[in-house]
Amino acid sequence: MNRRMVVYRVGQIMVLEAVLMIFPLLVSVIYGEMRCLISFGAAIGTALLIGIIPMVFMKPYDNVMFAKEGVSIVAFAWILLSLVGALPFFFSREIPNYFDAFFETVSGFTTTGASLITDLDAMSRGMLFWRSFTHWIGGMGILVLMMAIIPTDSGRSMHIMRAEMPGPVVGKLVPRLRDTAKILYLIYFALTLLETLLLLAGGMPLYDSIVHALGTAGTGGYGIKGDSIGGYNAYLQWVIAVFMVIFGINFNLYYLVLMKKFKVAVKNSELWLFGILILASTVIIAVNIYPVYGNVADSARHSFFQVTSIMSTTGYSTADFNTWPGLSRNLLFILMFIGGCAGSTAGGLKISRIMIMMKTIYNDIRQLRHPRSVVKVKIDGKALDDTTIRRVSTYFVLYCLLIVAVFLLISFEPFDFETNLTAAVSCFNNVGPGLGAVGPAGGYSGYSDFSTIVLSFAMLLGRLEIFPILLAFNPANWVNKNK
Amino acid sequence: MNRRMVVYRVGQIMVLEAVLMIFPLLVSVIYGEMRCLISFGAAIGTALLIGIIPMVFMKPYDNVMFAKEGVSIVAFAWILLSLVGALPFFFSREIPNYFDAFFETVSGFTTTGASLITDLDAMSRGMLFWRSFTHWIGGMGILVLMMAIIPTDSGRSMHIMRAEMPGPVVGKLVPRLRDTAKILYLIYFALTLLETLLLLAGGMPLYDSIVHALGTAGTGGYGIKGDSIGGYNAYLQWVIAVFMVIFGINFNLYYLVLMKKFKVAVKNSELWLFGILILASTVIIAVNIYPVYGNVADSARHSFFQVTSIMSTTGYSTADFNTWPGLSRNLLFILMFIGGCAGSTAGGLKISRIMIMMKTIYNDIRQLRHPRSVVKVKIDGKALDDTTIRRVSTYFVLYCLLIVAVFLLISFEPFDFETNLTAAVSCFNNVGPGLGAVGPAGGYSGYSDFSTIVLSFAMLLGRLEIFPILLAFNPANWVNKNK
Repeated sequence: MNRRMVVYRVGQIMVLEAVLMIFPLLVSVIYGEMRCLISFGAAIGTALLIGIIPMVFMKPYDNVMFAKEGVSIVAFAWILLSLVGALPFFFSREIPNYFDAFFETVSGFTTTGASLITDLDAMSRGMLFWRSFTHWIGGMGILVLMMAIIPTDSGRSMHIMRAEMPGPVVGKLVPRLRDTAKILYLIYFALTLLETLLLLAGGMPLYDSIVHALGTAGTGGYGIKGDSIGGYNAYLQWVIAVFMVIFGINFNLYYLVLMKKFKVAVKNSELWLFGILILASTVIIAVNIYPVYGNVADSARHSFFQVTSIMSTTGYSTADFNTWPGLSRNLLFILMFIGGCAGSTAGGLKISRIMIMMKTIYNDIRQLRHPRSVVKVKIDGKALDDTTIRRVSTYFVLYCLLIVAVFLLISFEPFDFETNLTAAVSCFNNVGPGLGAVGPAGGYSGYSDFSTIVLSFAMLLGRLEIFPILLAFNPANWVNKNK
Repeated sequence: MNRRMVVYRVGQIMVLEAVLMIFPLLVSVIYGEMRCLISFGAAIGTALLIGIIPMVFMKPYDNVMFAKEGVSIVAFAWILLSLVGALPFFFSREIPNYFDAFFETVSGFTTTGASLITDLDAMSRGMLFWRSFTHWIGGMGILVLMMAIIPTDSGRSMHIMRAEMPGPVVGKLVPRLRDTAKILYLIYFALTLLETLLLLAGGMPLYDSIVHALGTAGTGGYGIKGDSIGGYNAYLQWVIAVFMVIFGINFNLYYLVLMKKFKVAVKNSELWLFGILILASTVIIAVNIYPVYGNVADSARHSFFQVTSIMSTTGYSTADFNTWPGLSRNLLFILMFIGGCAGSTAGGLKISRIMIMMKTIYNDIRQLRHPRSVVKVKIDGKALDDTTIRRVSTYFVLYCLLIVAVFLLISFEPFDFETNLTAAVSCFNNVGPGLGAVGPAGGYSGYSDFSTIVLSFAMLLGRLEIFPILLAFNPANWVNKNK
């Protein structure tokens, strides 16, 4: 493996992180938070040190990059990103335990939104901004951001993009990868800005609007109040709910709309299935919780908000759904697995994988009845190759296995079955809240350091869709072939 | 479809059921249970009526049989078998609600062992015998029994055997299918007899010995006491535990042993994985529950018993594992999914499917690293064809989907998350007990008629491994092509 290049690229990411931490530093300046400011300064210094040394001393001899280099860059960049991103919390003593700070940061970058912080009011403005900003960075991906900034070899960097972007198939919007990355980030930025303006228009303070827009855009879910979005007015709740849907949709479709290819965008079958699932779940839950709220408007709003929050794997809440009737709670639990569309900032299995698996089942049953018929699985008219289909199945099996492993590893905790199982599922799918003690009114503060680390890796595995982490840690990769 | 033949064959099964009900009728005679005797007499009459009419009036014009006829015969035979098998419970008013009686009978035939009966002491001897006897009949399969008795066209009946026998690949032991069926039932009978004798030797009364041997052989789990096996001595518990392992192993291996091919049998990789999983789980749980029992002997016995009971999907218990620490409970929950070996009487996913999926994952990861390498998935040295591998994946996805569906359908019940989820998982995998209210000390009596029916179909789908039920209920099958 081209180790030098892996180290070099990860070094670049550290420098980028240092640059990105200037934003929360500025927020600290604005609010006059001195300790917070020093913490960010120290963290920026550390990031630069970690980043520049390998960039100076480990210049790669060549740009040779295969899949294994791509996945290694992504895996190590994300781990280091979180290790360093946790420093401000730790330095400022706002999260005094480093493992907890690491968990909080991984939860941020992976856009999970699971939190260990018990008193949000005690946190500084700078730290809360950084927390939500990590959602925004992690949502579209920091390596994609790097591609948009630094010119790279398009053919080779595709391996990086494939490893960081979620979904079973990753394609370029335009021939040049750098332009694709730029377009994605422009759409992302524009939509985030639009949400901020709409929240401002509804009377939400500027700071709150920016933080919540960042949290929605990355489908993360970090808020700044103990009751999440529950304290804001109905208009603001609707705006956030609609934007959770928007950020759960494949960004390629927005590009198609920009190119005025409305018809192609509207015909997208993943979009339709996403919409149908949201609608059906909203209706079922609204009917089920009607007796709790006693009127249609509230039932519909809470139901729609929670369904879009869970399906987009954001994790905001307007109500404590942990106290809802069994059917609603169980349905929300199942929705945690599904997630949003491929090519969005959402987590979960992704709608397109569900679609491919359903169509494969349909085809297999058909073939059982007509053994000699050969029918290809098609999505939007395009036949999928066997490797893609097999890899979706493999992914699903591995995904189930790893969730089970996480669940068993955190079983030492004194929590009940429901809490531990939903914690494992929610973290792996980058949702955030679960049921029981990790419900919207609770949090992850009760977990031990051991479980905190296990759940942190669950979030990373979920965000990077397993393979990059597994491949990067394969020792066979590190036998040096081309120094 | 050759509808006449499907009806004819299902009719034959009804007659066979009538014959099999003579055994519990005799038990009623021995114990002088008059009402019980009349109920069995009436049920036998009904079964004969339902069976003989189509056999007389629907004689098939030919023996043409394809996969669709095979699965339809199996699916309808099993449903009718349960509908009629429920009659004695209903006629005798020992289970006054017919839906409950149906659930109890499906649970019997599918070797689940989930029970709605709250007071076993109030049941007659005849009924309790019938309950356990249904385990024995369903364990190896009633259509396999039919094959052993009635001469059939070997090539065609293979479709029936494939539909009824669990596991990803079903093969014949000997060239003639009838001989294969006979050998399987002979081994089954011999092992059941051996267990009965070993239980008698340990001081268990004759009736109890027979009933428990039947329940173990089918890996069902119906007992005759409120505390299942908890009241019997340690020797008897060990005997039953060892026989649960024995009946969870592929019967082909016993045939190999009879043929003196010890080496081939011992090298079987499914057997090894089954053993390793049992051993590892037993050790983990024994250590985890040591503080509860305070001594090694009890911890080891309870742990081994419960692990073998859950993995073989029998469902007997010597202790209320619902009160054990979280790790043990959660591990047992995970083991419910795995089940025993293919070609055994156990339920669950089957060890061989787990093996195939694990090897496919390993191959796929390998291929990600070396994109041009092509490696076949091999089990015991034999390469598996792509259709088998794909069908295992499809099966797994469908299996997960259906468990989720069952879970959601029973979510209307006023039970907690843990109870409903483990009930769905336990019934689908034909285990029996779950956690929470459906734990070893509880039962399914709190469920509504609606949920009772849903869970009954879950058990049937699990026992017949989904496809037969799905295909048989496909209306396209019933368009008459060759009357």
